[in-house]
This record gives sequence, C-alpha cells and structure tokens, in this order.
Amino acid sequence: MSKGLLIVVSAPSGCGKGTLLEEAAKQTDFYYSVSATTRAPREGEKDGVNYHFLTRERFMEIADGGGMLEYAEYCGNLYGTPKKAVDDMLASGRDVLLEIEVQGALKVMEKCPEAVFIFILPPSLETLRERLEKRGTESAEVIAERVSQAEREIKEAYKYGYAVVNDELDKAVGDFLAIIRGEKLAVKRNGEAIDRVMGG
Amino acid sequence: MSKGLLIVVSAPSGCGKGTLLEEAAKQTDFYYSVSATTRAPREGEKDGVNYHFLTRERFMEIADGGGMLEYAEYCGNLYGTPKKAVDDMLASGRDVLLEIEVQGALKVMEKCPEAVFIFILPPSLETLRERLEKRGTESAEVIAERVSQAEREIKEAYKYGYAVVNDELDKAVGDFLAIIRGEKLAVKRNGEAIDRVMGG
Repeated sequence: MSKGLLIVVSAPSGCGKGTLLEEAAKQTDFYYSVSATTRAPREGEKDGVNYHFLTRERFMEIADGGGMLEYAEYCGNLYGTPKKAVDDMLASGRDVLLEIEVQGALKVMEKCPEAVFIFILPPSLETLRERLEKRGTESAEVIAERVSQAEREIKEAYKYGYAVVNDELDKAVGDFLAIIRGEKLAVKRNGEAIDRVMGG
Repeated sequence: MSKGLLIVVSAPSGCGKGTLLEEAAKQTDFYYSVSATTRAPREGEKDGVNYHFLTRERFMEIADGGGMLEYAEYCGNLYGTPKKAVDDMLASGRDVLLEIEVQGALKVMEKCPEAVFIFILPPSLETLRERLEKRGTESAEVIAERVSQAEREIKEAYKYGYAVVNDELDKAVGDFLAIIRGEKLAVKRNGEAIDRVMGG
C-alpha cells in the first residue's frame, strides 16, 4: 500500500481557509490532524476534537521526546502537532491534513520536505481588510494588526509549493483538490504505478 | 501576462493516448504543437495540420539553425518539433502540448526542465498486448515487438514528472487535467499571484 500524502495548509486569518477546507473535505477523504495546546478549552470545545488539551508539563514531555512534529508558543500558550497520529495515518495510506500557521509549516518543511505545502491567499490585502471589517467583531486597531500580520505571513508564501487564491470558493476548492490529485500522480510518489505496469 | 505551460506527453503505442488527449482538449485550451517530418504525406494528411512536411534539406537547415526543440530519425525519416511556434504560443500565455516519443521527450527535459512531463501508462503490459490484438491490424510478430518496445519506453517513465494509468478514460482525463491545473498553481510558476496580493 502506498503511503498517504501529508498536506500542510496555511493562510492568514480572514482568507476563508476554514470554509475552503470544509468543502474540500466533502469531496476527498483525509485525516484532519488535531493540534495539541496548553491553553484552556473555550466554551463548546472538545478535547480530542478541537484540540488535545494538555498541561504544559505533559506537552513538554511529549515535545522533549520528539513527539511533536512542530510546536511553538503564542500568547503564553503552547501549540503543536502530535507526530504519532500523523505518522500512523500516513502509514495506513490515509492522507493527512495539517492546518498550521506559517512558522509551524516552515518547521514541517525541514522535517518533511516530501509533504505538499499549500498557501491560501486572499484576493488582495484590501479584500482581506474588508472581510475582517464585515465580521464586525474586531476594532480598527486589531484589524490593522491582522492585516499587517497577514502581509508578513504572505511574504513566506513564496516558500510553499502551491498558492491558491480564495476568490471564488468553488474555484479555490477545485484548485485545492487538483493540487492533491496531481501530487498523487507525481512519479516521485507513485513510481509504484510504473512498477505495477512493468510487473503485470 | 504569465507564460503558458509546456506540457510534454509520451505513451507507448496502444495506450489510448490519442483519445485521452482529444477528451482533455475539449475541457481545456492548449495549442497542439505540429511536428515536422521529412516523410511523405499519407493519404488524407494535410501539411501544417498533421505534420509540417519538409524536404530533408529544409528540415536540416532549420535544425542546424537551432530551430528544432528536438528531432530524431526513425525508419529513414526525420521527425522534429519546430521551436518557434512553441515559443510564440508560450510567450502569448497559451499552454502548448507536445505529444512526442520518449527519446524526444528526454531531449526536451534537458532544454526545458520547467516543462511538465506526463507519461501515459497502460494498466499492464498484458492489457496493452490485448488492446493491440483486438485492433487486428498487426501480426503476432509486430505485436510482440510493440509490447517489448512499450516495455523499453515504460522504463523511461521514471524520468517523467507524472505517470497516468489509462485504465478508465474519464479518470485518466481527470488525472491529466488535475496535473495541469495543479502545476499552474505551483509557486515556482505563479509567484506572480503572491506578488499581486501583496501589491493589491
């Protein structure tokens, strides 16, 4: 059986990544990696579903044992990708989706260069600002900070394998699925398909 | 405007490449590169449509001037890909499809490593043999030679970027189109998409 594909997706806040991945998930089957965190669960969040909620001691025990594919600290809390579940799923032939922010993705690039790295872009920084404003949940100051944060993140998009502009949702979902389908046909991954023909 | 994509497709005889590309052409727009040859036109073949029919002198004049992307001699006739039409179409932003055999494709790999190389595989050598037998147009000897020729060609498939097994036509066409769509989203090609977001 061939190994699953590790798909790493990043996007600045406000790019509609959540909706895009939700739609994509309806059309393909991948295991959605659940991150670990030391922050407290918010209302409605379930352990093992939204996050694996861990104490800082337990988190660092796993991380120190090499059990985190990547991890980082934000606002005083640790966030990371538990390695074992990812490895098990890949070994079983299932594709794994990691939805992580840019710094984490860059670390995964070093450890797993064979993964597929997709950056979701807004049509423009202006559109991003408008989307954040429409939400109406954040102050002008926070929005301005979000936009400059997005700008910093998008500068790292050049390091990704693929960039998808999320302008029309259907098109972006199609783009996302085509990337995955194409990657599975790459000879570097499916050389076995050639072996099978030769052996048949 | 971004440059078109150069798509190079090879397949052993009997893999259904013609039908596959015909179906794919209905769903996407690419310029089908017309090869040049020194062989005489067969009944019904049109100059500039099936081939550019050239004298050996004219062919070599173009080739010696660097005007052939690749060329080779088969059964006493020269076959080649005129470079200018390909370059012009790519520069105008149009994708170009080169349907060439393995030796030619390997030469294009050296000259245009940024092109997309797709190898069409039969489900198995046995299926290939059966398909050739069903045609009923060739002797057992010719079929045996075709199958060993296919085997030699398929060994080179490992050098291609992608391998598509033509088992079910619809699936193979979908695979082919996904490869092209995905390649267009690769950051190495569409870094401009990121520039646009940053500048917008």
